[in-house]
Amino acid sequence: MIVIEKAKEMQRFADAQRQKGLRIAFVPTMGFLHRGHLRLMEEGKKHGDCLVTSIYVNPTQFGPKEDLAKYPRDFDMDYKLCQGVGVDVIYFPSNEEMYPQHYQTYVDLEGVTQNLCGLSRPGHFRGVATVCAKLFNLVKPHAAVFGKKDFQQLVVIKRMVADLNMDLEIIGLDTVREADGLAMSSRNTYLKPEERQSALSLSRGLKMAQGMYAQGERDAAVILDAVSRFIAGHPHATIDYVKICDTTTMKDVARLDRESVMALAVRVGAARLIDNSVFGEPLNV
Amino acid sequence: MIVIEKAKEMQRFADAQRQKGLRIAFVPTMGFLHRGHLRLMEEGKKHGDCLVTSIYVNPTQFGPKEDLAKYPRDFDMDYKLCQGVGVDVIYFPSNEEMYPQHYQTYVDLEGVTQNLCGLSRPGHFRGVATVCAKLFNLVKPHAAVFGKKDFQQLVVIKRMVADLNMDLEIIGLDTVREADGLAMSSRNTYLKPEERQSALSLSRGLKMAQGMYAQGERDAAVILDAVSRFIAGHPHATIDYVKICDTTTMKDVARLDRESVMALAVRVGAARLIDNSVFGEPLNV
Repeated sequence: MIVIEKAKEMQRFADAQRQKGLRIAFVPTMGFLHRGHLRLMEEGKKHGDCLVTSIYVNPTQFGPKEDLAKYPRDFDMDYKLCQGVGVDVIYFPSNEEMYPQHYQTYVDLEGVTQNLCGLSRPGHFRGVATVCAKLFNLVKPHAAVFGKKDFQQLVVIKRMVADLNMDLEIIGLDTVREADGLAMSSRNTYLKPEERQSALSLSRGLKMAQGMYAQGERDAAVILDAVSRFIAGHPHATIDYVKICDTTTMKDVARLDRESVMALAVRVGAARLIDNSVFGEPLNV
Repeated sequence: MIVIEKAKEMQRFADAQRQKGLRIAFVPTMGFLHRGHLRLMEEGKKHGDCLVTSIYVNPTQFGPKEDLAKYPRDFDMDYKLCQGVGVDVIYFPSNEEMYPQHYQTYVDLEGVTQNLCGLSRPGHFRGVATVCAKLFNLVKPHAAVFGKKDFQQLVVIKRMVADLNMDLEIIGLDTVREADGLAMSSRNTYLKPEERQSALSLSRGLKMAQGMYAQGERDAAVILDAVSRFIAGHPHATIDYVKICDTTTMKDVARLDRESVMALAVRVGAARLIDNSVFGEPLNV
């Protein structure tokens, strides 16, 4: 396994792989890796002869009042975890490398970014789309693997790739959970022990919603009301949003008569947690 | 020479070239080719084993009141001209191919697009940057050639390529002119015979400015005043802008103590003409 820090070196590596006719698989991360990331990497191994992962806490996707400075980092541990799962290259750029002085180009999406985290975190998806566009140009992957925990992010990336004719496949993988159902996230490290039960209100709320759907409920307002009350009943938990959206447009739906996703964002103590579940699909909780 | 209309076919062609270790040179155009375009193509031949040109009148770079509908088109003539100059592939996509339903992704630049044509034509450079990002992903060139007549466009493209880590070289070529000095443009076809002399006020204004610079004048206001009066003195000519800008930031300069460009946009009858000249560089007028 090698670590590459420079843009040109990353591109020359990618060119050499492609010149040999080898496929490049890519898993972009912000580091502080957990089993969810490792699952993405295992999947990546299946889609390429060479697996590249990036570790980069991207400043442009954090708002001015968000947790950029305290976002958890542990490169040494990440290195060992990557080695264990068979990563070939860690791309580990600096901020100066990614956003040099006079940087001024951004990729913006108009529709799918308007709801959910796009409302709560203005500019977040602009930062996500921009850094992914850059990373795709640097790593030149044939396939990139993203987790479905960030459901809207996956929709944004797929839309960008299609719209800008980026020639790679985007693969979405099911959320990996702790034994108690909590979706894996680097931000779970912010949770205090007494907040853990409240953090479980997300996955349990999703399970409740799936149960109502299985019973035939198709009125979004009825499900939203039940899940909102359930989550709000937990100490330390403050709802950012509880929504049911069309999985393609990310617009709110009133009735569950098309493929729809329940998407949750809840602040539990210092952690802003997100989780989601597509109605009718199995939820591993 | 082959004509490719479909995105995937263009990408597979590019992949096959690259797989063979061949270099791809690219000249994007909106068609209605003139000698300026052909000069770009000749230069392209030097930078690649395979020369691709695109012919596409990109709707997203036209404002709602601009000349999209009447922009001149003549594919049969363009085909022959491309053949004559040794183009290998004409990429000729449809609007449905480039901007299908639900299209929503745009590339935006914050600094270099704010002045000049960015002021006169809101959204113009967003359309230019977006279509070039798409075309670069479709054609996968090692080098792309642009004319300096669209000076700000060249600055925008270079900035986007650097910022988004697009792995290609951008080459800028001097403006090709008619014998009387008029910069070649597909839009010159809009000029009526009686407007031709007024159209020459742009290149002559630039020559006047270079003369003042050669005499030691460094006060931008003095040069701007002289050139503006000169152009405004011509019938049929309405100034859109007469500016002197820093060639890197595209910001107005008060004194010519750094590399600066005089940039002109003038409406002459139905034609909006642009021209420019970097101070101290030869002007072939």
